[in-house]
Amino acid sequence: MNIVLLSGGSGKRLWPLSNEVRSKQFLKLLSDEQGNHESMVQRVYRQIVQAGIEAKIVVATSATQVEAIRGQLQNDVDIVVEPERRNTFPAILLAAVYLETQKKVDPDETVIVLPVDPFVDVAYFETFKEMDAKVQEGSADIVLMGIKPSYPSEKYGYIIQKEQGIVTGFKEKPDATTAANLIESGALWNGGVFAFRLRYLMQIADEHLKQVGNGKRDFWNVVKNYAQLKKNSFDYEVVEQADSLAVVLYNGSWKDIGTWNTLTEEMEKESIGDVIMGEDCINTHVINELSIPVVALGTKDLVIAAGQDGILVSDKHKSSYIKPYVENLSNRPMYEERRWGEYKVYDYSQYSDGTRSITKHITINAGCAQEYEVHRYKDEVITVANGSGELVIDGCLIKFSCGDTISIKRGQKHGIRAFQDMQLISVQIGEDITEEDAETFNWHWQEDKSL
Amino acid sequence: MNIVLLSGGSGKRLWPLSNEVRSKQFLKLLSDEQGNHESMVQRVYRQIVQAGIEAKIVVATSATQVEAIRGQLQNDVDIVVEPERRNTFPAILLAAVYLETQKKVDPDETVIVLPVDPFVDVAYFETFKEMDAKVQEGSADIVLMGIKPSYPSEKYGYIIQKEQGIVTGFKEKPDATTAANLIESGALWNGGVFAFRLRYLMQIADEHLKQVGNGKRDFWNVVKNYAQLKKNSFDYEVVEQADSLAVVLYNGSWKDIGTWNTLTEEMEKESIGDVIMGEDCINTHVINELSIPVVALGTKDLVIAAGQDGILVSDKHKSSYIKPYVENLSNRPMYEERRWGEYKVYDYSQYSDGTRSITKHITINAGCAQEYEVHRYKDEVITVANGSGELVIDGCLIKFSCGDTISIKRGQKHGIRAFQDMQLISVQIGEDITEEDAETFNWHWQEDKSL
Repeated sequence: MNIVLLSGGSGKRLWPLSNEVRSKQFLKLLSDEQGNHESMVQRVYRQIVQAGIEAKIVVATSATQVEAIRGQLQNDVDIVVEPERRNTFPAILLAAVYLETQKKVDPDETVIVLPVDPFVDVAYFETFKEMDAKVQEGSADIVLMGIKPSYPSEKYGYIIQKEQGIVTGFKEKPDATTAANLIESGALWNGGVFAFRLRYLMQIADEHLKQVGNGKRDFWNVVKNYAQLKKNSFDYEVVEQADSLAVVLYNGSWKDIGTWNTLTEEMEKESIGDVIMGEDCINTHVINELSIPVVALGTKDLVIAAGQDGILVSDKHKSSYIKPYVENLSNRPMYEERRWGEYKVYDYSQYSDGTRSITKHITINAGCAQEYEVHRYKDEVITVANGSGELVIDGCLIKFSCGDTISIKRGQKHGIRAFQDMQLISVQIGEDITEEDAETFNWHWQEDKSL
Repeated sequence: MNIVLLSGGSGKRLWPLSNEVRSKQFLKLLSDEQGNHESMVQRVYRQIVQAGIEAKIVVATSATQVEAIRGQLQNDVDIVVEPERRNTFPAILLAAVYLETQKKVDPDETVIVLPVDPFVDVAYFETFKEMDAKVQEGSADIVLMGIKPSYPSEKYGYIIQKEQGIVTGFKEKPDATTAANLIESGALWNGGVFAFRLRYLMQIADEHLKQVGNGKRDFWNVVKNYAQLKKNSFDYEVVEQADSLAVVLYNGSWKDIGTWNTLTEEMEKESIGDVIMGEDCINTHVINELSIPVVALGTKDLVIAAGQDGILVSDKHKSSYIKPYVENLSNRPMYEERRWGEYKVYDYSQYSDGTRSITKHITINAGCAQEYEVHRYKDEVITVANGSGELVIDGCLIKFSCGDTISIKRGQKHGIRAFQDMQLISVQIGEDITEEDAETFNWHWQEDKSL
């Protein structure tokens, strides 16, 4: 079995913790069975393993999420980077071609596609075995997962089945009466989980790739000519065109925890981080990622979220209306997870003479190394607040440790490797202090006995 | 006329904006007539001037407040530093001896003592003229200000007058019925404003100083032996022992704005700083001193205050119960106004190897200079993010400007003077990174043509 996880877009609905590079699925606000914080991505991966599913896992996502996925799932998954955001059809096609041409997956194997962030029981993933069996016995082109509806929702799509397991149609977002009738007649919610033989999608891919690039079903051809693929959803482009569709029931918890209101319902504790709750707080959740304390007194039905990007104080029921208020806020990420560690921004200033400066706290994990890169428009001064490591600057190696400071001028190639966990304070000064002003080069670190 | 402003203790009731070095009277949350933010101290000073009072003004306070007062009132006032906190009697005695022996004030002049933070009308200060006249005509040893009660408060002290203006007694915090009866019979609230001839207090001082130090009524003798003075309030030690007391009526607004609830009532706008208020917010005030935005959605009866020390989200009526929740929080100031500018702390970390680091953003105003000082237990790396100035290090002068970095080792004397406004990022690393690890030396900056 092969699993394709679709890791979707950047959302502002969980502002200030989610941003352009940190989608909601990477926020570590849930708890695993040992009570450790985990993100939605980590939860889904853990549940797949717990369900006893043995599968190759590929995450289809955009380049901005690669570092976060590597940081959270290490090398347990393959990552396929969508060259641009073009809806689910091209993304799934890209991932499937990757499986076939790069991973040499047998075309008769099952591929199951799902979103990366369903909040579900382990039983959800156990259902995959049944879906796989149905695909392998050839009972339908595509096997869907149908979720047992718990109320006549107007927000979801419904899968209509004639008799048990045979899909005859779909209904998107019906009104409440229609929804109730649909449920009465056995319709299920459509959870966006699709299973099919890899061979089936390859046939469709061939059709679509005829006019694309060199016309070949080749991974790099798809990558290079991704912009020519139809910007359509997999539902419309594939599922609704299939000759035969089957459905397998999942009768368990299934939630979208995309707003603060729904997310806080699933939090094990009422607070995360440095938080003091007065005894009179009622139905209040506080998530604090800052290094200063949050004190809540006498609050009711509130969510308080504090992060490097800002501070939200919202009535829980109003929290889903956040988007227009934060849409126009600066998009500069103030916190990023990277494969070598993380950084947070302390300060970001523009001065009257037009220069800008940014002050960051950078953590490089022991044994990890930053990119070897060059900035064109900014100088950088780095002070080692803790730990030790080595700096390569224009090809020269310098060991440095706690208390040392290094001045790197624009145009100088540089990279840092940590021997022990390193805490760095970096001040960048220049006209352009965005993350985009960085050109990377290859650098092969020598093996080091001290690591 | 001479005015002694008593600038009282550090309060945590306006946490996170007030702290050990930044008492509530220094928070710039009020608005002057042009709509500019001003602090309670600045407001009182402005009102004294507006009332047409011509007086020498002395602020009696602790050493921790000197920098903030100089920053907010410049050299418009004298400051008398209480060697330790010992209640109002020794503080007023010290200030009065300062007026007589250091400022050579005529002993027949009137001295009016008041707390630095009454929230009142200008008419309050106009009353001073009447008090001065009463003192000068010799109608009583001490003339008090009596505030027209607006309700039978159980929190205040009452001044009982037999006939108009002649004080016969006091009543502290009566129950509501007693308070109503007192008001009925003409009693007034005691606002803690005392007027007397300097000569009168000098006689009392002589009594008290007989056994203190060299027994002389000399400013430096009082300073040196301050710990021997009676730790008592001026009310008990002087006012209640006086042979004759008069009272002058102030019939106007008089408030204690020492809690978030009372303070926000006096704020001109519902928010200060980078704040986005959703349209559904009701009776919500937000004060944000951080550089990241605060977004409030659907909140009701809330005060939200965000500063370098932390973030408070409180029901307005519960905000006065804050003390026990914040009492044990770190006392390290995260923001300080200094006479040369200000600093804020971005980060304060302790590492597993026992070393600590602190990262600060320091602003030195053009033409101003920091202390010439030495640290014994910490090294410091300073990066100039903007502006230019000069550094003196062990007696050597170095000009430095935007992008430069300086490494100062423990034991090296150093000081910085700004030519233009300077923005510095300072990283201090060591075992002791408190503000106390600083020994100052004299340094005479050469006159500089560029200033």
